[in-house]
Amino acid sequence: MKFLIPGLFGLAVLPLTPAFSETLPLPQSLIALNSTEGQSLLMESEAQADYFDLGIHFTNQVHPAFCGPASIAMVLNAMDVPRPASQMTLGLGLFDQENVFTPQTEEVKPRARIERAGLTLDELGGMFVAHGVSAAPHHAEDGTLDVFRETAIASIEDEESFILVNYLRAGIGQEKGGHISPLAAYDAETDRFLILDVSRYKYPPVWVEAATLFDAMNTPDSDNDGRSRGYLLVSR
Amino acid sequence: MKFLIPGLFGLAVLPLTPAFSETLPLPQSLIALNSTEGQSLLMESEAQADYFDLGIHFTNQVHPAFCGPASIAMVLNAMDVPRPASQMTLGLGLFDQENVFTPQTEEVKPRARIERAGLTLDELGGMFVAHGVSAAPHHAEDGTLDVFRETAIASIEDEESFILVNYLRAGIGQEKGGHISPLAAYDAETDRFLILDVSRYKYPPVWVEAATLFDAMNTPDSDNDGRSRGYLLVSR
Repeated sequence: MKFLIPGLFGLAVLPLTPAFSETLPLPQSLIALNSTEGQSLLMESEAQADYFDLGIHFTNQVHPAFCGPASIAMVLNAMDVPRPASQMTLGLGLFDQENVFTPQTEEVKPRARIERAGLTLDELGGMFVAHGVSAAPHHAEDGTLDVFRETAIASIEDEESFILVNYLRAGIGQEKGGHISPLAAYDAETDRFLILDVSRYKYPPVWVEAATLFDAMNTPDSDNDGRSRGYLLVSR
Repeated sequence: MKFLIPGLFGLAVLPLTPAFSETLPLPQSLIALNSTEGQSLLMESEAQADYFDLGIHFTNQVHPAFCGPASIAMVLNAMDVPRPASQMTLGLGLFDQENVFTPQTEEVKPRARIERAGLTLDELGGMFVAHGVSAAPHHAEDGTLDVFRETAIASIEDEESFILVNYLRAGIGQEKGGHISPLAAYDAETDRFLILDVSRYKYPPVWVEAATLFDAMNTPDSDNDGRSRGYLLVSR
């Protein structure tokens, strides 16, 4: 025989679990990849080659200032850059947010300073170069939306080349500061790029309009002498 | 003026970098997700709802015996199970391979023993139950390929339900022991399931024929009193 104890029964039903995750709400202008519309955009997208190479190495940044290091690890793995020796921590032979820091990257910016301030666009490029990878920073203020769009689509379609964006989150309606993540796909009909956002605890991957993203890159970065943010093209 | 020092120049060109990653070679019977054929299978697949929810939380196991804990973290995140308190280690508010271990899961199997021996199918179910999630283990020896196929497709299409497989790698032509990972998609024309393999340092996600996978699940697990491996259905 089972007795219901009112107090305990009350407790048992009290914690109504939320139906959705605790990521921050998205503005209507952005489309989550795991929404019905976001899935359709991927299926119909005109450029998506990098999505598959990046997606199988998609990772979550492990520190609030590590959007750069997380993006670097993803892209080095996607590019098949020769891997570091296996270790028993995060990576087991893949690049991760520990072994992405090397004596060479310390010369670019010491890890301790990255933990305090993250990476600028130019420092992001320097980190890739320190790993033996070609990297070309493009400050948005020096270019145009059309050139960015054309360059980004070509990079996404070329499996030897990858593109990362450095933008102000507030510029695309998110919370809120400077951020870095790779681009993975492009849909021509809606003129949107897919950002594989490495802050997975904060936002899902989103489809963002090219013009909105360009404007969010064309913002001054006080950590970089007021130069604008932008995008980085990397290739082996 | 620049002098070429023959010895150093020789050194600089010696390390011919491999064009591809150091994952193990796949048998011809398996199709990598990031191959041209693998990408097409995803685009044409009949069941793929779980792919998007799992893909945005795809992760790499951080310990050779943590295929189970890595799969659990992925699935709990994909299911939007209320998250643990934020921490400054791996997860930043998502489930990870640290906070997936709780006092309740210690009762199922202590972390120290999982590090030595991994998880059996039934222990995997117990770990989910310890997180407040319904879990139903199905030993392959108790069922049939047809029931597995039908059940797995329904679970993949139902975003409230997820399916994990526990199989002998050698049975699908891989190296080599027991393994656990979630299923993400199904292609009817080729009768193949997509395994989002959490050993990302070892193999890419692969499309495997349903019959091959079923046979690899229908193998005795000496850690589980000789009972066969199989699949686990989980839902909130």
